[in-house]
Amino acid sequence: MERELFSSEHDDFRQMVRTFIEKEVVPHTEEWTDLVPREVFDRLGELGIIGVRMPEEFGGGGAPGFLYNAIIVEEAARALVSLGPLRCHMDIVSPYFTKFANQEQRERWFPGLASGELFSAIAMTEPDTGSDLAGIRTTARRDGDSWIVNGAKTFITGGTHADLVVTVARTSEEENRREGLSLLVVEAGMPGFEKGRRLPKIGLPLQDLCELSFNDVRVPAANLLGEEGQAFKHLTGNLAQERLSIAVGSVAAAQAALATTIDYVKERKVFGKPLATFQNSKFELAAVAAEIEAGQALVDRALARHERGELTSVDAAKAKLFSTELQNRAIDRCLQLFGGYGYITEYPIARLYADARVSRIYGGTSEVMKSIISKSIGL
Amino acid sequence: MERELFSSEHDDFRQMVRTFIEKEVVPHTEEWTDLVPREVFDRLGELGIIGVRMPEEFGGGGAPGFLYNAIIVEEAARALVSLGPLRCHMDIVSPYFTKFANQEQRERWFPGLASGELFSAIAMTEPDTGSDLAGIRTTARRDGDSWIVNGAKTFITGGTHADLVVTVARTSEEENRREGLSLLVVEAGMPGFEKGRRLPKIGLPLQDLCELSFNDVRVPAANLLGEEGQAFKHLTGNLAQERLSIAVGSVAAAQAALATTIDYVKERKVFGKPLATFQNSKFELAAVAAEIEAGQALVDRALARHERGELTSVDAAKAKLFSTELQNRAIDRCLQLFGGYGYITEYPIARLYADARVSRIYGGTSEVMKSIISKSIGL
Amino acid sequence: MERELFSSEHDDFRQMVRTFIEKEVVPHTEEWTDLVPREVFDRLGELGIIGVRMPEEFGGGGAPGFLYNAIIVEEAARALVSLGPLRCHMDIVSPYFTKFANQEQRERWFPGLASGELFSAIAMTEPDTGSDLAGIRTTARRDGDSWIVNGAKTFITGGTHADLVVTVARTSEEENRREGLSLLVVEAGMPGFEKGRRLPKIGLPLQDLCELSFNDVRVPAANLLGEEGQAFKHLTGNLAQERLSIAVGSVAAAQAALATTIDYVKERKVFGKPLATFQNSKFELAAVAAEIEAGQALVDRALARHERGELTSVDAAKAKLFSTELQNRAIDRCLQLFGGYGYITEYPIARLYADARVSRIYGGTSEVMKSIISKSIGL
Amino acid sequence: MERELFSSEHDDFRQMVRTFIEKEVVPHTEEWTDLVPREVFDRLGELGIIGVRMPEEFGGGGAPGFLYNAIIVEEAARALVSLGPLRCHMDIVSPYFTKFANQEQRERWFPGLASGELFSAIAMTEPDTGSDLAGIRTTARRDGDSWIVNGAKTFITGGTHADLVVTVARTSEEENRREGLSLLVVEAGMPGFEKGRRLPKIGLPLQDLCELSFNDVRVPAANLLGEEGQAFKHLTGNLAQERLSIAVGSVAAAQAALATTIDYVKERKVFGKPLATFQNSKFELAAVAAEIEAGQALVDRALARHERGELTSVDAAKAKLFSTELQNRAIDRCLQLFGGYGYITEYPIARLYADARVSRIYGGTSEVMKSIISKSIGL
Repeated sequence: MERELFSSEHDDFRQMVRTFIEKEVVPHTEEWTDLVPREVFDRLGELGIIGVRMPEEFGGGGAPGFLYNAIIVEEAARALVSLGPLRCHMDIVSPYFTKFANQEQRERWFPGLASGELFSAIAMTEPDTGSDLAGIRTTARRDGDSWIVNGAKTFITGGTHADLVVTVARTSEEENRREGLSLLVVEAGMPGFEKGRRLPKIGLPLQDLCELSFNDVRVPAANLLGEEGQAFKHLTGNLAQERLSIAVGSVAAAQAALATTIDYVKERKVFGKPLATFQNSKFELAAVAAEIEAGQALVDRALARHERGELTSVDAAKAKLFSTELQNRAIDRCLQLFGGYGYITEYPIARLYADARVSRIYGGTSEVMKSIISKSIGL
Repeated sequence: MERELFSSEHDDFRQMVRTFIEKEVVPHTEEWTDLVPREVFDRLGELGIIGVRMPEEFGGGGAPGFLYNAIIVEEAARALVSLGPLRCHMDIVSPYFTKFANQEQRERWFPGLASGELFSAIAMTEPDTGSDLAGIRTTARRDGDSWIVNGAKTFITGGTHADLVVTVARTSEEENRREGLSLLVVEAGMPGFEKGRRLPKIGLPLQDLCELSFNDVRVPAANLLGEEGQAFKHLTGNLAQERLSIAVGSVAAAQAALATTIDYVKERKVFGKPLATFQNSKFELAAVAAEIEAGQALVDRALARHERGELTSVDAAKAKLFSTELQNRAIDRCLQLFGGYGYITEYPIARLYADARVSRIYGGTSEVMKSIISKSIGL
Repeated sequence: MERELFSSEHDDFRQMVRTFIEKEVVPHTEEWTDLVPREVFDRLGELGIIGVRMPEEFGGGGAPGFLYNAIIVEEAARALVSLGPLRCHMDIVSPYFTKFANQEQRERWFPGLASGELFSAIAMTEPDTGSDLAGIRTTARRDGDSWIVNGAKTFITGGTHADLVVTVARTSEEENRREGLSLLVVEAGMPGFEKGRRLPKIGLPLQDLCELSFNDVRVPAANLLGEEGQAFKHLTGNLAQERLSIAVGSVAAAQAALATTIDYVKERKVFGKPLATFQNSKFELAAVAAEIEAGQALVDRALARHERGELTSVDAAKAKLFSTELQNRAIDRCLQLFGGYGYITEYPIARLYADARVSRIYGGTSEVMKSIISKSIGL
Repeated sequence: MERELFSSEHDDFRQMVRTFIEKEVVPHTEEWTDLVPREVFDRLGELGIIGVRMPEEFGGGGAPGFLYNAIIVEEAARALVSLGPLRCHMDIVSPYFTKFANQEQRERWFPGLASGELFSAIAMTEPDTGSDLAGIRTTARRDGDSWIVNGAKTFITGGTHADLVVTVARTSEEENRREGLSLLVVEAGMPGFEKGRRLPKIGLPLQDLCELSFNDVRVPAANLLGEEGQAFKHLTGNLAQERLSIAVGSVAAAQAALATTIDYVKERKVFGKPLATFQNSKFELAAVAAEIEAGQALVDRALARHERGELTSVDAAKAKLFSTELQNRAIDRCLQLFGGYGYITEYPIARLYADARVSRIYGGTSEVMKSIISKSIGL
C-alpha cells in the first residue's frame, strides 16, 4: 500500500540518492572486496547526502527530520548494495555531535562532518562488557587540560575509516556504575590510539567491526562531548532512533529480497516450467509480501511519530523487534527458492541472508526489545 | 502507538457503543447460552448503532465511511463479548442493499434495516460448492412476475434470525458458470423457504451457521437486488470490505486476548510468585504486543485507504492474511499462560481461542488470500 | 517407518481392541452427546481390556508392560473416537493401586478394577492451586479409625463416573508444604462427598472435568493408599508414565488427523480439481508426515525405555513436549485444508483440533517440561 | 536417550576417530584458512578411516554398514571441526566405485581410494541445470577406445582436491532426456580437463564448491563406471544414503550447537548473572534439546533400517527434511543467546549457522523431499 510519509522534497532527495547509487555504486560494488572505499564517502559529501542533516551554516543540507536518513537506508537496500558504515555514521554517531557539540566543537568538526571529510564512529562495547554500560573499564584520567585514556574497545562499526571516535570512558569512579562515564572524541592519529584487527563476521563484508586500543592517549579536554559524567543519559537518548534506523533497514532488506526473488522465480525454470508457476513459490512469496506490508506499515507509523518528536523507546523496540524478525524469516523463505544459488554469495539473496542475522542482535537484541516492551505493559 | 484515523465524531460513537456494551451486553452475556437474543438487535436499532450507516431519510445515521463499522467490531472484541452475526449483517450484507436497492426497495426495506427490525443474511455457499460461485446449483426460474427458487444453502451466518436473505441463484444457464447468477431477496416466512439445522462449530457459540432450503419458493420479481445475471460482479465488489472487516476483528481479538492475559498473569501466582514476574511470561506477551502493533498499523493503513475509496482486493487480502494468522498465533500464546484455565470456556481466553480458528478460513481462506497476493506480484 | 516395539501378543491385543472399537464404539459414537456411557467400561471389562494389566489372581490380564496401555490409546485415536477418561483410569490412577495397595485393599478393590466395575479418578488439583502440590488445602483429620476429609477439588478427569477417588489430602501440617500429604481413597456415595458441576471445555466433550467437594467425609483409615505423609513422593513417581501416555496419544492423534486429511483432499474438489493435486496440499501434508515420523520415533524410543524400566522424567518430558507441540501444529495444518468444514465439529478434524489444545497443558505444561529438561542440561 | 545402534566395534572406531580429531585436527583447524589440507586425507588413509568401508583385499577396512560413515560425520560435528569434502567422498562418491567398478577398475583404483591417495568427487550439476538430470548437456562422444568429453560442471564439492571425478555425460541422444547418460571417471591431469574457480559461499569455508570444464577431454573407455546409458538409474540408487548422510550431519551439528551454547550460557554473565540463570535461556535450550532428541530418534531409526538394507527413498526424505529444518531452527536459537559474538565467525556457533543453510538445499531441497513424501501418501 502507498506510503504517505514523504513530501516532494523527500522524493527529490530519494531520486538523487537513487541516481547516485545506480551510477556510482552499483557498477563498482563487485570490485569492493573489502570495505566500501573511503572515496565513496567523499562523493556522498560532495553530493550533499552525507551532510544532509548537518546545519547549513557549516555546509550541511539543514534538512529537517529523520526521513532523509531513512531514504538513504532504503535506497541502498533497494539497489542491493552496501554503503558500509554510513548508516552508523549518520543515524547513530552524528546525532551525538549535533545534540551535544559546543560552539567551538561545531566550528571545528561540523564542516568536515558535513563534507564527508570527517567520518565518525562510536566506541562503547568492550570485551566482556556486552551492551551493559555499567561494565565499562576504559578510563580517562584528568591531567591538566587533557584526559589520559586507557582501555580497549571492540565491535566498533566503521572504526577503520573513522577520524573521530566518540569514546565512552570512565572519568570518575562512582558507586552506581552507570554514572561517572563521559564521551570523549578521540581522533585518528592521536599517539597511543590504535585501530586493531577486524572481527570476521558471517556477513556484512563491506562494513568493518573492529577493535580499538587506547594506551595513554592524551585527549584534549576540549574534546569532551556533552556533559562530564553524563554519558549514560546521552547514550540512551539516541537509542530509539538507532533502533528505528535498524527497523527501516530490515524492512527495506526484506523488500529487496522479495523483489529479487520475484525476478528470479519468473526467469528460472525447473522441470521445464518457470519456478513462478509452482503454487509453493506463489504462496511463499505471497506470505512474505503480506508480512512486509505489515512491517512497512509499522515502521512508517514509527517514522511518522519520530518526525513529530513522539517516538518512545517502546515504539522503537516494537518496530525493531518485529522488523528484524520479519527480515530474517522473509529472506530465509526467499533464499530457499533459489536452490543452490541461494548459498552462493554472488547472488544478492545469499548476501542478504548473511547480513540479516545480526539485525536481531545489534542495537539491542530481540530479548532486550522484549524486556523493554514487557515493562511497558506492566510486567 | 496512537492511531490517527478517528475524528471526534468517531470517538463519540465509540463511547456510545462502549457504554451500551458495558451496560447492556456484558451483564447478560453469560445468560446467553444459545444465540445472541434478537432483542439485542432491536436495542442496537433504537440506539442508532445498527443503522448508523443507513441513509438519514430512512431513519439511519447517515454516517460516512466504514470506520463506524470498525468501531463496533473493535468495541465488542474489547469487552470480550459477542454481538453474534451483527458484523455479517452490517459489513457484509447491508452494503448490497445500500448499493443495489432501487427506490422502491429502499422505501420498503431501509426503514426496517435502519431500525433493526429487519435483520439480513446472505446465502451463497452450497453443500459441495465451497466458495466457488461457479458451482452454484440453486435455481430461480421465472414465472410471471415471480421467480421460483429451488435449492439448498449452507454455512449461512445469521440465518436463524434473518428476515431478509440475499440469495444467490442461477437465473439463466450460461456456459461461463459465473454468469447467469442473480441476487434475490428471500423473506422469512415465504412458503417453501425453510431454515434448517444449525451446524455445530468449534467456537462462536452465540452466532449461528445454518442451513437453508428452498422448495418452490415464489419470490416476487421486485425482490431482485441489482442487475439480473450480475451477481458475480456484485458479490466480488464487496469482498475487500468483508475481508477488511475480518482483519479489524482479528486484530481487536488479539488485542483483547493480550489485555486479559496481562491482567491474568499479574494476579495469578505460581510457586508463590506472580506469573507476570517470570521471564517467559514477559517475553511471550512482549512478542505478542509487537505483532499486534504491526497488525494494527497494517489494518489502520487499510482502513485509511478504504475511507478514501482506494482499498484494493490485494490490500484487503494482505490485511486479512496477516491479521488472522496473527490472531491465531497471539491467542494461542496467551492461552498457554493460563494453564488449565485456558481450556475452560468460562475464561474469555478459551472462547477467543475457539472463535479464532475460523478467521483463517471464512471470507476466503489464507490460501485464497495468498493466491490473490501472488497474482498481484506477477506470479 | 516400521515400528519394532510390539510382540505378537501385542499385535493380538491390538487386533482385539481394534475390533471392539470398530464394532461397538464407532457405530454409537455420534449418539453419545454427553459422556462416554458407563456401560462401555463394563464391556471393556468383559473383554479383558480395562483390566489387562491387573494381576491375574484378581481377574486381570496380568499383561506386562505399558505397551498394552499404549495400544488402547493408539487404537482409539486411529478410529477417531473417544473412550472418555479411560486413559486416565488406566495409565494414571490404576498404577497407584497396583503399586501401593496392601493385601486387604488388593482383595477389596482389584476384582472391581479388573472387571471395570470400579472406575477410578485422582483428585489432586484445587481451585487456586494449579499443579503445585505445596498449595493443597484439603485436609484429613484423624478421628479414631477414620479420616475426616474437608476441602474442594477441581479439574477432576473422570470424576463423574468414578467409584474410587484417590484424593490428595493434608494429613499433617509440616513446614515443608510438600510433606504431610497422603492419598486417601474416597468412595462414591460416602456421606459429605459430592460431585459438583462439570467444567465447560474447548474440546473433549465425551470426557468430564469436574469439581468435587468434601464436607466432613468420614473415610476409613483402611482406605489410606501408600504411606501416610508420602503422597508427594508417590505422585511424582508416576509422572513419567503419565506424560508418556499423553505423548503416545498426541502422536496417534496427529497420525489420525493426517490420515483423515489425506482421504479428504483426495475426494474434495476445488475449482474442478481434487484438492490433493494442489502443490500446497501436497507440501503441507508431506511436512506433517515427516514431523509425525519424528514424533513416532521419539515416542517409540521412550516406550522401549519404559518397557525396560529405564524411562527418566527427562525422557518423558522431552517426549511430551515434542509430541504435544507436534500434535497441535499438525492438526492445525490439516484442518486448514478442510476449509469451512474444518470448523464444523461433525468433522473429526474439528474435534481433533478442539481436543488437542489441552495436551500442551495437562500432565504438566510445556513450560514445566522445559523446566525439567533445562535442569537436566545443567541450567 | 541412549542410542542402541552401535556395537563395540563401532565404539572402538568412534574412539579412534575422536582421538584423531582431538589430536590432529582441533589443534590445527584455525590455521586452515582455505581448504582442509590434502595431507589430512593422507592421515585419514593411514589410520584406516578413509578406507574403512573399502574391501580388505585392497587395503580397506572391510567394515560392514553405513554406521561407520555416520560415526565420522558425528565426530567431526561433535568436535566443531570440518573435514572438508570427506563426507562427500565417502558417503556419496565412493559407493559408485564399490557398486559399479569392474575387476580391472577395482584393482586400478581401490588401493588408492582405500589409502586416501585417490580422492574422488562427482560432477553432476551444470550451469542452468539444477538437479534435473534431464537437462545435462555435457557430452561424451565415442572415438575409438575413448570418449571425448565436452561440457561444463558447477557446484562440485571436493573438485579442487579430486583425483577421480565421476562425471555424468550424455553418451547418446535419447528422446527421454534421462536416458543416454553415463558415468565416466575423469582423472585430474587429463588434457582439456580444468578445475575452474571456486564459488564463494555463505559458509563451509574449508570445503570447496568448484567449477569444472571439459574441453575435448579424451577419457579411456575403460573409465566407464557402471553400464553405458544407465547413469540415471545408478545415480538415483544412492540418493537415499546421501540424504541419510546429510540428516546424520544435521542432527550432529544441532547437537554440537546445543553443547557449545550450554557451555557459553553457563560462563557468560549478563547484568551480573550467568546467562544460564535466565528463564529464556533455559526454555530456549530445553526446546532445542527436545527437538534434537526427536531428530536423533528419527535418524537412528533410519540408520537401523539402512543397516538392514531397508531404507526407502521416502524414509530418507523424511529424515533429511526433518533433520535439516531442525538443524537450522536449533542453531538459529542457540546463536541468538551469544549476542554479538554469535555473528563473529571465530565462534563455532557462527560457523555452524553459516554452514547450516545449505543443508536444506543440497542433496535435494526440502521441496524435493516434500514431493517424494507426498507421492508416498498418494498425493
